[in-house]
Amino acid sequence: MIEVLRLGHRRARDARITTHVCLVARAFGADGVVVAEKDDALEKTVRDVVGRFGGPFTVRTGQAWKPYVKEWKKRGVVLHLTMYGEPLERVASTVRGRDALIVVGAEKVPGDLYELADHNVAVGNQPHSEVAAIAIALDRLTDGAWARRHFEGPVEIVPNPRGKTLINRTNPPGRPRGST
Amino acid sequence: MIEVLRLGHRRARDARITTHVCLVARAFGADGVVVAEKDDALEKTVRDVVGRFGGPFTVRTGQAWKPYVKEWKKRGVVLHLTMYGEPLERVASTVRGRDALIVVGAEKVPGDLYELADHNVAVGNQPHSEVAAIAIALDRLTDGAWARRHFEGPVEIVPNPRGKTLINRTNPPGRPRGST
Repeated sequence: MIEVLRLGHRRARDARITTHVCLVARAFGADGVVVAEKDDALEKTVRDVVGRFGGPFTVRTGQAWKPYVKEWKKRGVVLHLTMYGEPLERVASTVRGRDALIVVGAEKVPGDLYELADHNVAVGNQPHSEVAAIAIALDRLTDGAWARRHFEGPVEIVPNPRGKTLINRTNPPGRPRGST
Repeated sequence: MIEVLRLGHRRARDARITTHVCLVARAFGADGVVVAEKDDALEKTVRDVVGRFGGPFTVRTGQAWKPYVKEWKKRGVVLHLTMYGEPLERVASTVRGRDALIVVGAEKVPGDLYELADHNVAVGNQPHSEVAAIAIALDRLTDGAWARRHFEGPVEIVPNPRGKTLINRTNPPGRPRGST
């Protein structure tokens, strides 16, 4: 069980970045995402993707982060992704296989989080992106399981070297099920 | 030599995503980024990071994408990242070590690109993020070299399990050079 917790989401400014955070969490093997700030539109966007491309994957917004982190510490390891932390490689080898909450902030994160997290983890000590950090962290924590996973969604993309192949099982009966 | 080419950037809507694209390209081992659409503010943001955290890393905006891709094909391999493409693992093993242009679009990409690219490459066939796709693609193409690389910038972050350690060699003389 791996969950992603997103802090500091501002609806106008971060709409797209937080959407990417959620979709990356899903695509790279997290079981769900929790966003501290309430955002109904974001929930709907993510649920639409889950409904079409498959789950299970949960999304919830408007959850106070500190009690959530404290609760999580009782049942798993809390990893805070930050460019200031310890190298991912070092931490991943000690926590792989455990239930984990992966926490990412936006521009600034509350100082308390550095204390509360079991590990402050750097996906490289360079400025880049929480979106990339989650992808790489999940990749390392699950040994790249995302590449072998099959989501059983009604919409499915079939790898194609030269175009788009999409199987859509949500089509009304009588209409073709595949298109290229 | 690896470069990232970003298409379909709209200054207002994509400012933050494209900034993440550029910073991820740098942090995970590309030598530079080219953005098809002109954006001086974006260039400045990226150059500021390079100036502080180190390079070399080039950024250029306002470059017509099609001639650029055609030129690149003469000297290396052009990989278009798309959820519709062939699995990254398969392509990476055939192109690793070659000069490569990694192309990412925004929401829609021109159909021509699927024809012009040497490979249309999927970092998983699920919807997620071009930011994550670049990070994982660079990770696989360089065998994770980003984790061992040392950027020789005037600003340097020292891994810290419990806080922030930043060495800033740009401080004026007489002021402390390190802070925790």
